[in-house]
Amino acid sequence: LQALDAVTSGTVECAHTPTYFYVGKEPTLGFGTGVPFGLNARQQHSWWYFGGGEKLVNDALAKFKATSIPCGNSGCQMGGFFRKEIKSLADLKGLKMRIGGFGGKVLERIGGVPQNIPGGEIYQALEKGTIDAAEWVGPYDDEKLGLGKVAPNYAYPGWWEGGPELDFFINDKAWNSLSSEYKAAVEASASHAHVDMQAKYDARNPAALKRMVASGIKLFRFPKEMMDAAFKEAMALYSELSTSNPNWKKIYEDFATFRRDENLWFRFTEAGFDDFMQAQRL
Amino acid sequence: LQALDAVTSGTVECAHTPTYFYVGKEPTLGFGTGVPFGLNARQQHSWWYFGGGEKLVNDALAKFKATSIPCGNSGCQMGGFFRKEIKSLADLKGLKMRIGGFGGKVLERIGGVPQNIPGGEIYQALEKGTIDAAEWVGPYDDEKLGLGKVAPNYAYPGWWEGGPELDFFINDKAWNSLSSEYKAAVEASASHAHVDMQAKYDARNPAALKRMVASGIKLFRFPKEMMDAAFKEAMALYSELSTSNPNWKKIYEDFATFRRDENLWFRFTEAGFDDFMQAQRL
Repeated sequence: LQALDAVTSGTVECAHTPTYFYVGKEPTLGFGTGVPFGLNARQQHSWWYFGGGEKLVNDALAKFKATSIPCGNSGCQMGGFFRKEIKSLADLKGLKMRIGGFGGKVLERIGGVPQNIPGGEIYQALEKGTIDAAEWVGPYDDEKLGLGKVAPNYAYPGWWEGGPELDFFINDKAWNSLSSEYKAAVEASASHAHVDMQAKYDARNPAALKRMVASGIKLFRFPKEMMDAAFKEAMALYSELSTSNPNWKKIYEDFATFRRDENLWFRFTEAGFDDFMQAQRL
Repeated sequence: LQALDAVTSGTVECAHTPTYFYVGKEPTLGFGTGVPFGLNARQQHSWWYFGGGEKLVNDALAKFKATSIPCGNSGCQMGGFFRKEIKSLADLKGLKMRIGGFGGKVLERIGGVPQNIPGGEIYQALEKGTIDAAEWVGPYDDEKLGLGKVAPNYAYPGWWEGGPELDFFINDKAWNSLSSEYKAAVEASASHAHVDMQAKYDARNPAALKRMVASGIKLFRFPKEMMDAAFKEAMALYSELSTSNPNWKKIYEDFATFRRDENLWFRFTEAGFDDFMQAQRL
């Protein structure tokens, strides 16, 4: 979490981190990684390169003396582990969940109690019942953490991380000292790391999910009324931020327009193909 | 279409082409780009890097003295332009459609008549009624070809190209003469071109689709009974090829296992997020 500070001060020349770790310093940095009910992985990348994201996020980073390049994406994340299955919005009332950032803010608005707990202490907190739920990443990473052993109800989708992008942060002085050839080499390498990471998660998640289900973990889909309430509160939160923060308004308007068009388009051929294939006996 | 020959002979050192142009020379090269009812764009890439695709496709290319690296993907394509909307499987009977490769073979098995017509002659053939339908790519490319003016019913999804991968073919002698540093630079550059192309299509397709619909083009989804029949015949074709061609059998078994696991996994969090977002008023 000190990565941005280290890049800003020049202690390190670069760092690999999600931009949204730093929303406490600057809320608009959320858009670099993604926000609840934002974009899926392909859309997030498309927004960066062809929808205005690159300039808008790097403008927000300028005061931290850093430049960001996309470098990895896990794909849509799972919704985390729950001691008890969530069957209605009412089940969220007072539920203590380890979840940070904007996801936590939205959870709070629909009745939950977001908690910040370091990675190493989640297991014990869930086992003891100090917390009721915790989110992490997706099957491949989640399996290693073993949270399903103490909270065996595994939710989807992770609506707060539809396509989280990891970034390669570079100190501006270090970046500007590079020739255009070296800059291009850094960008191409970041893209290769991005492609490699996405492909690896897509290949490793299915096997991990199957092992988890075989071990007794139960999958459940977040109830529609909970998704609807979370969506409504996320939009209300973004609207409030647009009123109080002109920078937020500027980026969010660009992002929201892009999101509307992307979902209009993905509804046709991508969803038509995916829905059909997912319904087949293969 | 002479790109592979030119790479094989060393007339050129490299070429940018879809692998499936060469299924006439070697059917298994279809897997480099994708086959009907195959993988979506992310899954295709994941199969290449982590599901066995890289070795299997490059083994199939070895006799052509070429090595392939993924370099671009349009995402799922549209289903093409039809003079009359297809409302049932019966409407396909005798329908003359410009469509090549395995897509054409499957169309033929469900009653259609696949035609090979060069790009420059499609418009006139559709206008005159020499053919009844033609497929191309997706809105951004299709709009430029103007086929919607003479065949204004625009179908989805393009089940024969769920996530077509473009490739960077390199003559083996040229490739092997490179140092490992240069090889890595070529691979990273190909990945950057891949990321750039996918992001560009995802950003440009929605606007093109909106313009096309505003100009009077009507969107329609292929009827379920037609999709089901095409899926069944595609699977029968792959099964026949597995019986007659041991190389096909070897690659298809790897590909099909990967496809089954990917669709199992994508059904949960990716589809859960995408379905929800696509249903919202944004």
